[in-house]
Amino acid sequence: MKIQLALDRLNIQDAIKMAKLVETEIDWIEVGTSLIKEFGMQSVKEMKKAFPYKTILADTKTMDNAKYELEMSFQAGADIVTVMGTAPLVTIKTCLEIAKENNKKIMIDLLNTSEEQIQALLPFTEAIFCEHISKDEQELAGKSNVQTKSRLKEQAVIEVAAAGGITLETVQNLVEQNLDVAIIGSAITKAKNPQETAENFKKQIGGILS
Amino acid sequence: MKIQLALDRLNIQDAIKMAKLVETEIDWIEVGTSLIKEFGMQSVKEMKKAFPYKTILADTKTMDNAKYELEMSFQAGADIVTVMGTAPLVTIKTCLEIAKENNKKIMIDLLNTSEEQIQALLPFTEAIFCEHISKDEQELAGKSNVQTKSRLKEQAVIEVAAAGGITLETVQNLVEQNLDVAIIGSAITKAKNPQETAENFKKQIGGILS
Repeated sequence: MKIQLALDRLNIQDAIKMAKLVETEIDWIEVGTSLIKEFGMQSVKEMKKAFPYKTILADTKTMDNAKYELEMSFQAGADIVTVMGTAPLVTIKTCLEIAKENNKKIMIDLLNTSEEQIQALLPFTEAIFCEHISKDEQELAGKSNVQTKSRLKEQAVIEVAAAGGITLETVQNLVEQNLDVAIIGSAITKAKNPQETAENFKKQIGGILS
Repeated sequence: MKIQLALDRLNIQDAIKMAKLVETEIDWIEVGTSLIKEFGMQSVKEMKKAFPYKTILADTKTMDNAKYELEMSFQAGADIVTVMGTAPLVTIKTCLEIAKENNKKIMIDLLNTSEEQIQALLPFTEAIFCEHISKDEQELAGKSNVQTKSRLKEQAVIEVAAAGGITLETVQNLVEQNLDVAIIGSAITKAKNPQETAENFKKQIGGILS
């Protein structure tokens, strides 16, 4: 299972510093939505420049204007871009096309996406599917999804990621569910010792980083 | 009915130039999602600086992290910020709270929002509701909503906006539906003569700009 480091609510330089600290323990670096909306594509450009050999995910949470937003993100250096599962189907299909043209990938963020919408998306097996309990749901409504057994892997041959309050205690559940990507934010970035914490995540996952 | 000028797929300086051209004909200026994701909050700051007495809407399309995204947008000079109707309810409620604390407003973008979700949102009468057919739905799936009679105004005492391919020919439908805001983008920004076109929209609406 890969570790995606989610960087949010930071300025670009602090985000890069944080990623440098844990670089060898993590696989993918996510430029969070808050960085993109605060600093624009500069955040993606600078992250790619700092980590040219890492996979950079731009969490654009695209809802519309798929071609424009994805081309802009890929040009800035993103390798993966996110689109919302609640977006119109035509937007998600366009994201897949633009990603394919650019030899890149998309992640479909299933935040608040209905079962019916998910079923319509499962044929898009080139996409990574992200089960997601949002920050607001965690912080303000006390929700967490990491205890719940994912059913996506049983329904289709797809890569599945999970995000939402993953901790050292709960990450093992994702390994057992055979998920592909654990998206970890504040458990690392707000740890007293982010480097040691990232090492512990890597150990917990079993050292099978690829 | 007010006119909200939607500025998308432009750089900040060209967006400001376009808004200057039609300043006297329009009411609200929307800093589009594409500007925010490309240039960050700088786009909102510069627009407010150029138009300190105009209402500036930041089309953040918030899905999560409501407090952070809204406070950031209001600090940058936004008067209205958008949140998606498909976002978790706790996110929309938080947007309302943060807007109230800042004496500002939110617009709930009903793009791809289910009837059930809309019903849950109707009690939030302080929000502006936006019926929205997206760019991708228009350009790639041939959809348009401006012919459809809105039912929102019949269900609650709320301000309702409409967006999605509104033209000089179709804007009259919105006036007849007693809608509050017509969100107009390319019909003005891509017109041969944006100023004359904006004047014609104003005339068509009946000159009742407030």
